[in-house]
Amino acid sequence: MQLQATTITFASTNQNKFHEVESILAAKGIRAGFARLELVEIQSDSLEEIAKEKARSAYAKVKKPVIVEDDGLYVDALAGFPGQYSSYVFKTIGNAGILKLLEGKKDRSASFRSLVAFFDGGNDIHLFEGKVQGRISEKIAQGGWGYDPIFVPEGAGATTFAELASSKNDYSHRKMALDKFAAWWLAKDTT
Amino acid sequence: MQLQATTITFASTNQNKFHEVESILAAKGIRAGFARLELVEIQSDSLEEIAKEKARSAYAKVKKPVIVEDDGLYVDALAGFPGQYSSYVFKTIGNAGILKLLEGKKDRSASFRSLVAFFDGGNDIHLFEGKVQGRISEKIAQGGWGYDPIFVPEGAGATTFAELASSKNDYSHRKMALDKFAAWWLAKDTT
Repeated sequence: MQLQATTITFASTNQNKFHEVESILAAKGIRAGFARLELVEIQSDSLEEIAKEKARSAYAKVKKPVIVEDDGLYVDALAGFPGQYSSYVFKTIGNAGILKLLEGKKDRSASFRSLVAFFDGGNDIHLFEGKVQGRISEKIAQGGWGYDPIFVPEGAGATTFAELASSKNDYSHRKMALDKFAAWWLAKDTT
Repeated sequence: MQLQATTITFASTNQNKFHEVESILAAKGIRAGFARLELVEIQSDSLEEIAKEKARSAYAKVKKPVIVEDDGLYVDALAGFPGQYSSYVFKTIGNAGILKLLEGKKDRSASFRSLVAFFDGGNDIHLFEGKVQGRISEKIAQGGWGYDPIFVPEGAGATTFAELASSKNDYSHRKMALDKFAAWWLAKDTT
């Protein structure tokens, strides 16, 4: 393996997400550039389909090897809601809405799924998945972004992603997906 | 205007919706055929964009002049939620979820919007809109489908779409949109 600077473009509208991606990839020796873009998101029951379309749409704009990430919070007692529409649901009813919907429900189990999609205009779009089991907290924690203040990953006690701060990456679905991508990309890059 | 049988294809996955469309158009002398299809739905803040993509996707499959309909329930106190994702939200948290989210909120106002999109492979996709103001009921009424058991249109007393049964069409957003389409289509058809 050669020692070399390697750069990938990350396309998203979400600056918070970019900062996480940047730091996770930097730990693997990969530099991430940020393309702040509105991307086509299809409505689909499949996070895979959504991520693939997004990667195609991103590549059409940046015309460089690009990754996009799509994640979803799946609450078991709510039939998987908000799932693939997590971002829209967050913008409307937010964390308070999720807690409200779970009032009086015993089962607070949930999972957080991340899909990283890589496309360089070639034949295939490569997908890398990360998933973390956990549960929805009783209260909204301070700090964090998105659903982090209400998601407690398994193994972290009663601590939400938001409270874990930088050690979020010991548990994060996004970290898992990006680590898989990084291993593949670094191997690919040096052949 | 000539007296003639005129037929349009309605594409949807929703049989309940087709029955409503069929009966509304029949009253205008238009026969509706049903193409039961899974259609591409993009994620967009714009119901217009979603309806247009859906009409394109439907025409590509049926290769005949086609209409599709997209509707959304917009609850004011929930920042417009469930809006353009009404169908997914219904399948997951359902009417019970909407009532739960409104617990303790004074403002129960909402609107129901329908967009009918027509495409025949020509240059333009034609859009026809219907909108009805109303509010969300305190309880889920018997009968009806979709959000009908919790939506009370203005002017109907405390009666939901579900309880209005066949007189739903005196208030319905879908009826308004389809009437606009019918007027345009009949004029177009006989020129």
